[in-house]
Amino acid sequence: MGIFLNNISLEEAKKIIEEGCRTLELKNEEIDTRFSLGRTTYEPHFAMISSPHFTASAMDGIAVNYLHTLEADITKPVFLENSKYEVVDTGDLVRDDFDAVIMVEDIEEVEGGVVIRKPAVPYQNIRPIGEDIAMGTMVLPSKHKIRAIDISSLLAAGINKVSVYEKIRVGIIPTGDELVNVWESPDKGQLIDYNSWTFAAMIEEWGGNPIRYDIVGDSYELIRDTLKRAVNECHMVILNAGSAKGRGDFTEEVLKSLGEVKFHGVSIKPGRPASFALIKDTPVFGVPGYPVSAFFVMDNIVKHAFFKVKNESFRERERVEAYISRKVVSSLKNDEFLRVKLGKVGQKLVASPLGRGAGVTMSLTNADGVVKIDKNHEGIEAGEKVMVEILKNKSNIDKTLVSIGSHDIVMDIISDMMNMEGYDLSSSHVGSMGGIMALKRNEAHIAPIHLLGENGIYNIDYVKRYLGDYVILKLIKRVQGFMVQKGNPLNINNFKDLTRIRYVNRQKGSGTRLLLDYFLEKNEVDKNEINGYTREELTHLTVAAQIAGKSGDCGLGVLSAAICMNLDFIPIANEDYDIVFHKSMLEDERFKCFYKIITSKGFKDKVMSIGGYDLEDTGKIIYV
Amino acid sequence: MGIFLNNISLEEAKKIIEEGCRTLELKNEEIDTRFSLGRTTYEPHFAMISSPHFTASAMDGIAVNYLHTLEADITKPVFLENSKYEVVDTGDLVRDDFDAVIMVEDIEEVEGGVVIRKPAVPYQNIRPIGEDIAMGTMVLPSKHKIRAIDISSLLAAGINKVSVYEKIRVGIIPTGDELVNVWESPDKGQLIDYNSWTFAAMIEEWGGNPIRYDIVGDSYELIRDTLKRAVNECHMVILNAGSAKGRGDFTEEVLKSLGEVKFHGVSIKPGRPASFALIKDTPVFGVPGYPVSAFFVMDNIVKHAFFKVKNESFRERERVEAYISRKVVSSLKNDEFLRVKLGKVGQKLVASPLGRGAGVTMSLTNADGVVKIDKNHEGIEAGEKVMVEILKNKSNIDKTLVSIGSHDIVMDIISDMMNMEGYDLSSSHVGSMGGIMALKRNEAHIAPIHLLGENGIYNIDYVKRYLGDYVILKLIKRVQGFMVQKGNPLNINNFKDLTRIRYVNRQKGSGTRLLLDYFLEKNEVDKNEINGYTREELTHLTVAAQIAGKSGDCGLGVLSAAICMNLDFIPIANEDYDIVFHKSMLEDERFKCFYKIITSKGFKDKVMSIGGYDLEDTGKIIYV
Repeated sequence: MGIFLNNISLEEAKKIIEEGCRTLELKNEEIDTRFSLGRTTYEPHFAMISSPHFTASAMDGIAVNYLHTLEADITKPVFLENSKYEVVDTGDLVRDDFDAVIMVEDIEEVEGGVVIRKPAVPYQNIRPIGEDIAMGTMVLPSKHKIRAIDISSLLAAGINKVSVYEKIRVGIIPTGDELVNVWESPDKGQLIDYNSWTFAAMIEEWGGNPIRYDIVGDSYELIRDTLKRAVNECHMVILNAGSAKGRGDFTEEVLKSLGEVKFHGVSIKPGRPASFALIKDTPVFGVPGYPVSAFFVMDNIVKHAFFKVKNESFRERERVEAYISRKVVSSLKNDEFLRVKLGKVGQKLVASPLGRGAGVTMSLTNADGVVKIDKNHEGIEAGEKVMVEILKNKSNIDKTLVSIGSHDIVMDIISDMMNMEGYDLSSSHVGSMGGIMALKRNEAHIAPIHLLGENGIYNIDYVKRYLGDYVILKLIKRVQGFMVQKGNPLNINNFKDLTRIRYVNRQKGSGTRLLLDYFLEKNEVDKNEINGYTREELTHLTVAAQIAGKSGDCGLGVLSAAICMNLDFIPIANEDYDIVFHKSMLEDERFKCFYKIITSKGFKDKVMSIGGYDLEDTGKIIYV
Repeated sequence: MGIFLNNISLEEAKKIIEEGCRTLELKNEEIDTRFSLGRTTYEPHFAMISSPHFTASAMDGIAVNYLHTLEADITKPVFLENSKYEVVDTGDLVRDDFDAVIMVEDIEEVEGGVVIRKPAVPYQNIRPIGEDIAMGTMVLPSKHKIRAIDISSLLAAGINKVSVYEKIRVGIIPTGDELVNVWESPDKGQLIDYNSWTFAAMIEEWGGNPIRYDIVGDSYELIRDTLKRAVNECHMVILNAGSAKGRGDFTEEVLKSLGEVKFHGVSIKPGRPASFALIKDTPVFGVPGYPVSAFFVMDNIVKHAFFKVKNESFRERERVEAYISRKVVSSLKNDEFLRVKLGKVGQKLVASPLGRGAGVTMSLTNADGVVKIDKNHEGIEAGEKVMVEILKNKSNIDKTLVSIGSHDIVMDIISDMMNMEGYDLSSSHVGSMGGIMALKRNEAHIAPIHLLGENGIYNIDYVKRYLGDYVILKLIKRVQGFMVQKGNPLNINNFKDLTRIRYVNRQKGSGTRLLLDYFLEKNEVDKNEINGYTREELTHLTVAAQIAGKSGDCGLGVLSAAICMNLDFIPIANEDYDIVFHKSMLEDERFKCFYKIITSKGFKDKVMSIGGYDLEDTGKIIYV
């Protein structure tokens, strides 16, 4: 081709890859038939022996020569002396001088022999040689994927070794000065190389043989040397570029110096920086460093190449129809892979979009499925029907209780305990008001909230105002307070102090943000005077993480988060963290499981062992 | 329970098994996260470190303290000296004394520093600590099956070891005096133990840990000792009884002496002798010895127990709708698992029933799918719609050319060569007339036949009489003759000789049977005088196998079969082995592949190397 392509469509990319992989040929290897499950035959395999390889009895009885039985009749029994027959069980050898078996039910034992009352038909009750497999029969043709049942046939036919296609060796080269191995402790500025191991697991799952090379720093020579070695040793190679744009150029330079770059940039999101090159007929894939981009490039591009070379179609993920909960605007430039949570709310399966950042690994771990938005569409309207490729077991979806709202560690405990009971708790953290809105939109079954009303009472006012006829389940009381560095070096004790330090805030609509605003007003502190008032984090834990990492000095949060990050804590207020839901949920089996758990001793013990919680009212139900 | 149950339904059996497996608990083990794909978490896993664990730049640019930028304006640029900023690439650490990153596009390098024209918003272009995962976040709950994407999240969160459920250890005990190991040569009367390795492969596929014990002879004490050991070492145990009924009783005696037999006999076919016992809470399955029975018991009973204990649902095989080609009568006593071949003939997917014997391993290897006939049904009418659970890749079905008719080794060669081209040749051997009938019933695309007409011309007469407007493709000429033992010890030279030896015949409707009858009449030999005229085998190879195994002395067959079994051969006649099909097939891509192959040099070379064939007319087409 010689033409370098930039930002092409996924379909074009696949075509170029198919063309590029065409000359790649796999060799064969001989392996033990017993351990050949899932491998693909390289050549036809013919039976080495017949099965059975001898004439066998198909019954328990006696083997005879039928000529000796011709005279037998009900009225005229025939006596056979011992030497004229042999007792056989099912599967036993029938000697060459016999040609029929008489069932045990049809003989009468007498002294010195047996009596029969019916002639035998030649070859009755006999399993002929090769009845199952005759020697020379083709047991498996070429290019057949060996299943468990094929192992039976091969071994029965005396084929103890099979010639199969070698596994596709895929080299994985992690690059970047910032990378450290998983077994090392990363310093500030360093990243754990988890991508290469995830790639290895994926390749293993596809039936390949992943070969991971050591991490290579950002050096033209080192990358070039490793790549040359990998191209020699593997069928295809993955270069995992560091996520750092500023230093990523080596990769492309090296690829150009050793071979030909066929494209760089595919119109998928996440995953745009994907590239493809050929080095002496060996396909080399440039996979971006951001984990979510990396996943989609592996899943859509490298996997496509892998199965083309394997000359096999892979089993597609299951798909379900769902209704998108919120409008999603998507660029006309790219196919977008939108990660969604799934939940059956009412009769409809609802797909709620998750965070769209390429760097958020957890958005994949938390996702139940992926919706592909074609680049010819500007997005999806709320309520529109979409096809979701599901990432978890389909049968789990109906067992999932969907919770959207505020976060607390107790929700993790409940989630874990529900899993033990065969249910799932799908928990999205968007703050209390976000939870109420999700209930309104029918996206969620339940919403955990903590919203201080003007009357000083938690939650009821908000539910009345926004939802109406709903139910509140009292969950826990917890302490909110200032999370500060160990020893409180900046001596932060009241809201006035916040104007002289670096504050870390929560997002708008979260209960904690509303609590801060309430106290700021009460204490007559101007929010514009607080450095960091506009700095928003989505959970207590991420606020605490900033302070523990010394990138902030103080944030409002719950005691459990402070304990988790080993921070000091100055209590400010007690609050009610409750669960809101529509009353119809009271009859829902998933909710019943939730309820059973929060009222169990096991739950109480776990929560109390964390500290900072009061479970006095847990389980009480208020009809608003 | 204490009540022993005989011949219960599959549903009842499953319930009893669930009850019996209820107390079985799996322990946990710690494994390396990198190699944890597909394992199930034993407990929740919380992030050990945040990801990122430092404040990182989200852009290439400079890190600044936003306070130093407040005055900047398009009209009033601000100069920042070197000490007031740090150059950062995406992913780089942002030091604690900085709180914003300005993109490289928005700065102008000057001597001793940079100039900016816009103030920085605090925390702009910054990736906060824990943006992906905050320390303490639950990354995975209990009972979560680890996917490749989860490995990313775990490793990113510093979780290098995961606590997972141990694999279910399944003991496999092959029993029977007649069994020999796969690496041994079986004597007459001995059987290769292939079942245990097939079971091991299945258990591996389910995610278990198969533990195969050595073959145990038919001895009460030995079986008892091995079973005691296995029950101690494994979570569940499979006792694979020899197929010999007469000796199988030990198993049940042993089970009764060590524990409690819960049922023996399930109303499924094949697979009725299945049994289930509990020995001190350890489930023990009696799996019958016949390979096809064994497969269905493993697939329906043991697998059910395995996934109950694993507390996971397994992914069902794909199903397709098809139309059954022939009436199938089934017993009201049992659920029957009918093995079928699938082929898309015209617009319909046709399922053709295969042999129903429990001992024929190849009926599973050859099957494309399984139809379950419920025991409340007497069978299936021809043309009835059925659901087929498919055993091969769904996408292959449309690529399959269905051939039903006479067998010749060249059909195996073509099948193998079609596989290499991405097509399948599904070949059923029912004799020439069977092939013609299959075409009439629209079960097959093509039928290989060799039928001698009264005029001495092959095939055309039969096609005219039974099919009409069809097409004949000339394939090969081959030699038919007497297959006799090496050296022709019984001096068999003509048809008269057949009355004094043990003959092995072919089934009615086969071309070879018709050929024999033609010659017997011509030579005035009475078929009733031939010992073995009623002894029917289905292929040339199985006839040859009887003679090679000395269970017969002579049979009519093709030279290639005699060569394959190292027999002597006395030529009798040359015949035309041709392919019949409807003319619409000429446009069919599968047929085109077939045609391309038979006219290729590769095919000719392979056929000629076997010997006994003439390819003079190969590829000629006759419109009947």
